[in-house]
Amino acid sequence: MPSHFTELRRIETSGGEVMKALHADEADFYGLGEAYFSRVNPGSVRGWKRHNEMTVNVVVPVGHVRFVVLDGDEPDASATEYDLGPDHNYGRLTINPGTWFGFAGGEEGGLVLNLSNIVHRPDEADGKELEEFTYDWNTPHGI
Amino acid sequence: MPSHFTELRRIETSGGEVMKALHADEADFYGLGEAYFSRVNPGSVRGWKRHNEMTVNVVVPVGHVRFVVLDGDEPDASATEYDLGPDHNYGRLTINPGTWFGFAGGEEGGLVLNLSNIVHRPDEADGKELEEFTYDWNTPHGI
Repeated sequence: MPSHFTELRRIETSGGEVMKALHADEADFYGLGEAYFSRVNPGSVRGWKRHNEMTVNVVVPVGHVRFVVLDGDEPDASATEYDLGPDHNYGRLTINPGTWFGFAGGEEGGLVLNLSNIVHRPDEADGKELEEFTYDWNTPHGI
Repeated sequence: MPSHFTELRRIETSGGEVMKALHADEADFYGLGEAYFSRVNPGSVRGWKRHNEMTVNVVVPVGHVRFVVLDGDEPDASATEYDLGPDHNYGRLTINPGTWFGFAGGEEGGLVLNLSNIVHRPDEADGKELEEFTYDWNTPHGI
């Protein structure tokens, strides 16, 4: 299955909401190697990265983070934008190994949880500078 | 091992901090059944609960949540308090099955991630009303 977004449930309870992230019986579960959070500062842009072994399963429970997933490695690869956050789309973005992606924090920044199938290892990831792809992070829509 | 707290690393990176939660090669990893968030509203108290199958692995990446873990099921069971949050203790609290616990949100509330070894099932948990244990949530230390 290509990289994709899965809407997740938010359940009101007394005392605060429960927000689902991942069930082990879902097709998007590839095993857990490591769970970690990344804070994304307001307006900061991180990219590009391509994991060769990691399947990324990210959820944004706080704030707003735009993920941009590219469909190839040509400089003008077409991009799909996923605006994630409880007040945008609450859900999980699954990014397959071999896929270039980047992300940026909205005005208030955001918090990302990655439920990765492997323990983080720098040697299984490739990086490119932002300008190596033509995607314009300063989109007229803003984030 | 009894229920316990494990300090976790926070790593500054450009664009925002990385905050560890759980590695699958740690002794505290009992498999992943489900990952979910609970928002804890300011001042709200939730308790008491005892899971019979679930090992709870909780991390508080935002705000401040006090977990209270009891050492028995007598009304005056002694309590251990864990004040969790990035500005308090950043780490993971592991609560074994068979253990009564409750939690409360600090002034600004908080967000809890539970990396549970099973999928949530109401039938594997017992509940008691707050007054069934003598622990005083209105501690003079406040939260």
